[in-house]
Amino acid sequence: MLPRITGTSVVGRSLQRGLVMSISPTQRMLAEGAGFWRLNATLPLMRAVDIIERKRDGHELGSEEIEFLVTGYVGGQVPDYQMAAFCMAVVWQGMTSAETETLTRAMIASGETVSLDGIGRPTVDKHSTGGVGDKTTLVVAPLAASMGVAVPKLSGRGLGHTGGTLDKLESIPGMRIDLSLAELVRCCREVGMAVASPTADVVPADRKIYALRDATATVRSLPLIVSSIMSKKLAVETEAIVLDVKVGEGAFFTTLDQARAFANAAIALGERFGRRVRCVLTAMDRPLGRTVGNLLEVEEAIATLRGDGPPDFVALCTEVAAQMVLAAQPASDVDALRRNATEKLKDGGALAVFERWVLAQGGDLSAVVDGRVAYASRQLEVVAKRSGHVSRVHALAVGHLAMELGAGRETKESDVDHTAGIVFDVQVGDRVEAGQRIAVLHTNRDGDAAIWADALRDTVELSAEPVLVAHPVIAVIGGAETN
Amino acid sequence: MLPRITGTSVVGRSLQRGLVMSISPTQRMLAEGAGFWRLNATLPLMRAVDIIERKRDGHELGSEEIEFLVTGYVGGQVPDYQMAAFCMAVVWQGMTSAETETLTRAMIASGETVSLDGIGRPTVDKHSTGGVGDKTTLVVAPLAASMGVAVPKLSGRGLGHTGGTLDKLESIPGMRIDLSLAELVRCCREVGMAVASPTADVVPADRKIYALRDATATVRSLPLIVSSIMSKKLAVETEAIVLDVKVGEGAFFTTLDQARAFANAAIALGERFGRRVRCVLTAMDRPLGRTVGNLLEVEEAIATLRGDGPPDFVALCTEVAAQMVLAAQPASDVDALRRNATEKLKDGGALAVFERWVLAQGGDLSAVVDGRVAYASRQLEVVAKRSGHVSRVHALAVGHLAMELGAGRETKESDVDHTAGIVFDVQVGDRVEAGQRIAVLHTNRDGDAAIWADALRDTVELSAEPVLVAHPVIAVIGGAETN
Repeated sequence: MLPRITGTSVVGRSLQRGLVMSISPTQRMLAEGAGFWRLNATLPLMRAVDIIERKRDGHELGSEEIEFLVTGYVGGQVPDYQMAAFCMAVVWQGMTSAETETLTRAMIASGETVSLDGIGRPTVDKHSTGGVGDKTTLVVAPLAASMGVAVPKLSGRGLGHTGGTLDKLESIPGMRIDLSLAELVRCCREVGMAVASPTADVVPADRKIYALRDATATVRSLPLIVSSIMSKKLAVETEAIVLDVKVGEGAFFTTLDQARAFANAAIALGERFGRRVRCVLTAMDRPLGRTVGNLLEVEEAIATLRGDGPPDFVALCTEVAAQMVLAAQPASDVDALRRNATEKLKDGGALAVFERWVLAQGGDLSAVVDGRVAYASRQLEVVAKRSGHVSRVHALAVGHLAMELGAGRETKESDVDHTAGIVFDVQVGDRVEAGQRIAVLHTNRDGDAAIWADALRDTVELSAEPVLVAHPVIAVIGGAETN
Repeated sequence: MLPRITGTSVVGRSLQRGLVMSISPTQRMLAEGAGFWRLNATLPLMRAVDIIERKRDGHELGSEEIEFLVTGYVGGQVPDYQMAAFCMAVVWQGMTSAETETLTRAMIASGETVSLDGIGRPTVDKHSTGGVGDKTTLVVAPLAASMGVAVPKLSGRGLGHTGGTLDKLESIPGMRIDLSLAELVRCCREVGMAVASPTADVVPADRKIYALRDATATVRSLPLIVSSIMSKKLAVETEAIVLDVKVGEGAFFTTLDQARAFANAAIALGERFGRRVRCVLTAMDRPLGRTVGNLLEVEEAIATLRGDGPPDFVALCTEVAAQMVLAAQPASDVDALRRNATEKLKDGGALAVFERWVLAQGGDLSAVVDGRVAYASRQLEVVAKRSGHVSRVHALAVGHLAMELGAGRETKESDVDHTAGIVFDVQVGDRVEAGQRIAVLHTNRDGDAAIWADALRDTVELSAEPVLVAHPVIAVIGGAETN
């Protein structure tokens, strides 16, 4: 008698179909015993298991069904195991644009939103899907702010082989990232930008659902990815959003098709919320810039703001900042914006915003400025064993090696060593001679230097022929202004 | 930075691939922090999330991966939400025969098995996939026992619109169904059969997994269905197993294709365990016999054992009992077995076993025998509004109506009213005249008799033309002896 169908009484089925307008106390009791409940008095009685089943069977869900699940999950009426099964059904069957919009709205409605009225400038948010050596926010936020827009940003921590902006900021002594939402807005009004840790009040549904997806192999679903990222961007009510979508072996999206699909879905979702979204698709087959590791990346970001950044990183930051201002002020001329961004990196305008911002959030840059930075206890030099032109630097392998050195998190509970990481002397396109130093590894961990050096050398491919370096920006996608 | 991949350190990935033979204490700590553990010292470190991911992506799992999940779930290391996501991935991607075998073995290994050595007769188990009015076990177990085999059976409770044998047995005063495994074997040795509730010691993994699947819309997966049903049959070590696979709108399998797929999978799985499995595919587009409801079905079963059963039910019982003996003694002549079964229903041989069995399990049949049965407080007669030949009786609608009268369970926690149910005066093929009584509804519930009477009449379709009645047995499947 095992396989049996539950709750399919005449009452139950009619309730599911919304056919029963009023039910008797006995029927109500039976319905509640069978797992039915409702969000509020005007909505129909529902059961989570029926909604999971409908998604499993490929049906499009109604908005009240999705709201029921999300609200129930946050409120504790829908248990983890039902949400886990639902997420796997979504990985399988997908979601329509309308479903994704409802999901995103329900997630946003689980918490507070941040109004930016009265900030006095066009507002724009920026998000990266994560890469190895991705310190872009540290440069483009002050750069865009120096060009006249305001950048209020909630950022994340790193996990796995990709770093998080918050970890990088915490390598600056005194830097406060636990701003209240009011502090975030105030800081933005005063210095043109702010970067803070998302408080528990903003999209709590995403926090809970993402942790569950992470443990149940249900991260890889376009509607779930888009709603997760965009819900947090949309909860902060900037007029425009720029997404830096990384593509390549060191990124979440390993193919251009995946990245394009994500970009198009994010743009479509933004439109449904009346927000301008532009996506910059950028290469993550190699690390970005020369450094990987939190403190080391902060140093490189400051060097870039002083006009002394590595060319690939400068090129990326210039384009992203130009796109941010364009998204916030669509009537702008994008070439003029690119020239303006280049100028602001050279004339100290962006650096001045950076310094005011760090100060506003309590950070102390004196150690970095004075060359008194406390590096990791071990500095291991790695030299090339043969000569050639650098044709590839494998981003994913570099990310994993940086984790081995202590720069990343194995689990959400792990501590990060802010001083650990890698500084490359060479990048793709450079000529290397045998015996030349190609990188320095920074670590506080015991471990065999020779093994780590071999691992580093394995990340660098050498070619006999000179190598052409591709521009880090692959494409820009976003409405009529596509470049 | 949201979509990130966890635990993909060099250590983690190597562990996943079984490449690391020995790891340092630091690496071990990192591995455990990232959710890795192992079943025992000789097996590799694994993580549930990686196994879910492999199934999600359509890979065939190794036996150690499936054992890890099942053992971990029963032991509490793998939480409900990971098993729920895994089950949905299996609904999506399926399982190979080898995976299904491993899953079944792991489930059986979670508890005790029941050895039947020394029972002194060929042993056979019987299982029904559940239907409306399905009292078959009450007749075929004593009938097969009267033909020389032993039938030790663990049975289930009803849920939804299909009834459970245990609920039917509990309508007999004094009947004990909570036998120990030792009592089950002893009763079987003494009277040739026993029917008991599965103890917590037999396949505890199935109990836990099935409850989870029921709440997560992951019941509908052939490998999960087959492993769930067969694990409990295989844990009781009978030589043979007969499955009564119901097909039609009132059954779990609504199409013949589904039922055949299940039958073939169950037979294949039985072969891998060295057990003979035969499947009888039977019609469940109409209720079986004339009664639906626990006590009412017991009465009908006893009438059948006295040679006075409804023709469809007698035909089914004769075939199932013959197949049970054939499965236990493959050299038999099946036509002779059918004749023998018919004889045992007529000469009181099966009834005598039934009476000894009920007595052995503490039951008191005197009320039924003496006509002193305590029926439900309300007996509502339903008359036909027009004349015709009964062309259909809709099993699913009958099952739902019986539940409304109190005969079924909406949820696992609900109580069953043993006296509630329906007695039909007519079956498919019968001629009905307007005004003639066609059924009596038994209930202790308040409720509008006129609405229930209309509901009953709606279950019965009348045709102007005489109707040919199909035999309840659609097909028999099972190895070389297929009929």
